[in-house]
Amino acid sequence: MTKINPNFQYLKKQYIFSIVEQKWEEIKKKYPEAEMINFGVGDIALPLSKTIAKAIQEAVQEMITEEGKRGYGPSEGYFFLREAIAKHFYANCNFSIEEIFISDGTNTDIAAIQDLFQSDSKIAVLDPSYPAYRDISILSGKKLLTIPCLAQSGFIPEPPKESADLVYLCSPSNPTGVVFSKKDLQKWVDWAKKTGAILCIDSVYSPFISSPDVPKTIYEIEGAKEVAIELGSFSKGAGFTGLRCSYIVIPSSLCISGKTPLHILFKKRTSIKSNGVAYPIQKGALAYFSKQGIQETAEQIQIYLDTAKILRTCLEKGEQKFFGGVDSPYIFWQIPKQFSSWEFFEKLLQDCHILGIPGDGFGDYGEGFIRLSCFSTTEKAQKAAKRLTQFFYEISHNNTATKYF
Amino acid sequence: MTKINPNFQYLKKQYIFSIVEQKWEEIKKKYPEAEMINFGVGDIALPLSKTIAKAIQEAVQEMITEEGKRGYGPSEGYFFLREAIAKHFYANCNFSIEEIFISDGTNTDIAAIQDLFQSDSKIAVLDPSYPAYRDISILSGKKLLTIPCLAQSGFIPEPPKESADLVYLCSPSNPTGVVFSKKDLQKWVDWAKKTGAILCIDSVYSPFISSPDVPKTIYEIEGAKEVAIELGSFSKGAGFTGLRCSYIVIPSSLCISGKTPLHILFKKRTSIKSNGVAYPIQKGALAYFSKQGIQETAEQIQIYLDTAKILRTCLEKGEQKFFGGVDSPYIFWQIPKQFSSWEFFEKLLQDCHILGIPGDGFGDYGEGFIRLSCFSTTEKAQKAAKRLTQFFYEISHNNTATKYF
Repeated sequence: MTKINPNFQYLKKQYIFSIVEQKWEEIKKKYPEAEMINFGVGDIALPLSKTIAKAIQEAVQEMITEEGKRGYGPSEGYFFLREAIAKHFYANCNFSIEEIFISDGTNTDIAAIQDLFQSDSKIAVLDPSYPAYRDISILSGKKLLTIPCLAQSGFIPEPPKESADLVYLCSPSNPTGVVFSKKDLQKWVDWAKKTGAILCIDSVYSPFISSPDVPKTIYEIEGAKEVAIELGSFSKGAGFTGLRCSYIVIPSSLCISGKTPLHILFKKRTSIKSNGVAYPIQKGALAYFSKQGIQETAEQIQIYLDTAKILRTCLEKGEQKFFGGVDSPYIFWQIPKQFSSWEFFEKLLQDCHILGIPGDGFGDYGEGFIRLSCFSTTEKAQKAAKRLTQFFYEISHNNTATKYF
Repeated sequence: MTKINPNFQYLKKQYIFSIVEQKWEEIKKKYPEAEMINFGVGDIALPLSKTIAKAIQEAVQEMITEEGKRGYGPSEGYFFLREAIAKHFYANCNFSIEEIFISDGTNTDIAAIQDLFQSDSKIAVLDPSYPAYRDISILSGKKLLTIPCLAQSGFIPEPPKESADLVYLCSPSNPTGVVFSKKDLQKWVDWAKKTGAILCIDSVYSPFISSPDVPKTIYEIEGAKEVAIELGSFSKGAGFTGLRCSYIVIPSSLCISGKTPLHILFKKRTSIKSNGVAYPIQKGALAYFSKQGIQETAEQIQIYLDTAKILRTCLEKGEQKFFGGVDSPYIFWQIPKQFSSWEFFEKLLQDCHILGIPGDGFGDYGEGFIRLSCFSTTEKAQKAAKRLTQFFYEISHNNTATKYF
C-alpha cells in the first residue's frame, strides 16, 4: 500500500506568507477606500528595468527566427550568464564557469543542495530565519538543529557546540535585517573547517550592501572556498521576483573526505532533474550587468534603502527598538511587550493599515518582533511614518482604540 | 562528518543525452562541410510561434509599467493558465483550478511528485523509458521495480504481478513511439485500483495524437481520477523547450487510505519549494490556446508528423522493422542484429551523418534499437531518406565502408 511522506505532518499547517496574504486580502475588502501600505512579503514594489525588459523581448524576437530559434539550453545555465556572474559578482574569486549554476529561484536551490547529502544528514537552521530552510529540510526527512538567534547578541549567533552537516546562513539576514561582519563569518568558516560542516550562504540580499566593510560574498573570507556554497538571486537586486532567475556557487575545492567534488555531483543532479531556465529570462539577467541595467536597478535599490531610512528614522524618533534596515531591505522591529507578534501584526493592520510580518512566523525566537519589508516607495514610507508616529504615542499610553490612517 | 548522498554511485556515469551531444559535436568538427541531420534529442526544430512570442513580449512590456508590474506569482501558477488548461485540455473532466499546477518542466514534475510519498516507496519504471524516471528515483533513494517492455508485445507491457507505490507510464511513449490504447490503459487503471498503486502518466507527447481512438489523456479511462496523476507540457506541443512551462494534474479524488487528498499536499509542497513560473512565460503559454496560437503550433506538429511519415515510408521500403511514428514524434528502429545500438549509432553518424539515440540509453531492453526523433523538417527527412535507402542496401550486403552523404 502506497504511503504518504510522513514528514508533511511536521510542517506548520499553513505557510506564513499564505496566512499574511489572506489577512491582507480581508483588510482590503473591509476598507476598500483606505490606502493600505504593504511592508509584508519581500517582493518588488517597482516596475521592471526597461533595459532588462528590452533584452528579454529581443531574445524572444530572436526565437521566432530560423537562425535564432532556441530549444533546450544547458541544464546548468547558459555560458554567457554564468560567465557574467563570475566576472561581476566574483571578480576576485577566480571562479570558473563550472562552479556556477543557474536556476529558477532560491527556494529551488535551497532544496537542490540537499540532494547532495545523505538522507539523514543534520541541517542547522537559525531561528528566526526564512521558513523555507526549515520546511524543506523537514519535508525531505533531514534531522534539524535549531540555532537560536537572540536580540541581545544582535541576532548574530555563534557556531553551535553540536555538529551539523549543512548550515543555512543568510546575510544580510531575513527577517532580522542584520549583516554578518567579516569577523562573524570567519568564525563560521573556521568552525565548518574544524567540524567538517558545509555552509550554505544565502546572499540574495547582498545587492543592498553599501557599507564598505561588510562582505558581499562569503568568498571574501579566508578558507570559505573549502567549506561554503553560496546562493544568489536576481529577484531582489534586479527586480526579478516575477521572472525567476537565481544562481548557486559551488567552488571546485569543495569536496567531502576526498571524494568527488560537490560541483561535479551537483552538475549530475542538475542534468537529471532540470532542463534549465528560459533563454529570454537568462538574457534579461545578462542585461542586468550592462551599464544601463546596473544604473536602473541601482536606482531601485536606492529607493528601497531610502524607504528603510525613513522607517528607521521614524522608529528611532518613536523610541522603538529595532534591528536592520542598513545594507538590508528588512527592519526587525521589537514590539511593545504587551503584544504577541500576531496581535501586533493585526493591530498594525487594523489601526494603521500597515502590513508587516509577525516575527513568530520565522521561528519561536522571532516572537516579540515584526518584520517590515522596505520594498516600497519613499512616498509610502513617509505616509507610514506619519501614521506610525501617532501610533507610537497612543500605544505608549495604552490607548488601543484610535485609528491612524 | 558530512556524508554525500550515496545514491549518486548507482547512477550511470554520464547522462545519455550528454554523451550523444558530445559525439554530435565531435562529428561536426570532423566534417565541418557536411550537412548533418539531427534526429537525436527530442528538441524543437522550428522557430517559436509568432503569436506566443508576441504574448510574452507584451507581458514583459506590462511589467515595466506601474500598473502592470508583477512580482511573485502564485507558486502553483497563475489562475488564467490553470483555467485555460482545465478548459482546453480537460474539457470533459470537470477539473477545478485547484487540481492543476504549473511548473517549469516535466523533469521538475517527475521529481516533485516523489515528494508526496514515503522515502522508501517502490517506484515502477518501464524499460526502455525516458531515463529521468529511473535516475530521479535512484537519486532520492526510492526502491525500483523495472518492468521490461518487449518488442514482441509491441512495447506495451502488462501491469506487473509485484506491487508498486508509484508507476511512471508515458503515452505516446518515449523512446518507443507506441501509444497505449484505451484497453491498455484500462488494465493499468484497474490494476492500480486493485493494488493501491498511483499511476503517473507522462503525456507530454499527447499533442501528436490525431487518431480518433487513441486517448489523449488518462482521464478518458474509467476510474482514472482515483488513481492517476498526469504530467503535461508546453515543450513539445507549443515549442516551449527553450521557454520552460509544464503542468501537473492531481485530481481531488486522489487520496491514499482516506488521508489528506494528494493535491492538497502537493499545494503545500509547492508553496514551500517553488515560487512559480515567470509571468511572461505563463502568458506565452496562455497564447498557445488562442485561435492563432493553436493554428501556428498545429502547423509545426504537422511538419514533425510529416517528417515521421517520410522516415516510416523509407524504413518500410528498406524492409526495416520499427515501432511508433504515428501519433508520436518518435520512431524506434529495430537495427540489424549484427550491431549493438551504440555501434549502429556510431555507424549511422559516421556513414550517413544522421544522429539517432542508441536504444540502450533508455534501458537494457532498448538494446537492438535506435530512436529517431522526428523533430526536424520534411526537407531534412527527405535527404535522410535518400541516404538511408542506399545505406540499407549496403548493410544488408555487409558492405560497411561506403559513405552515404
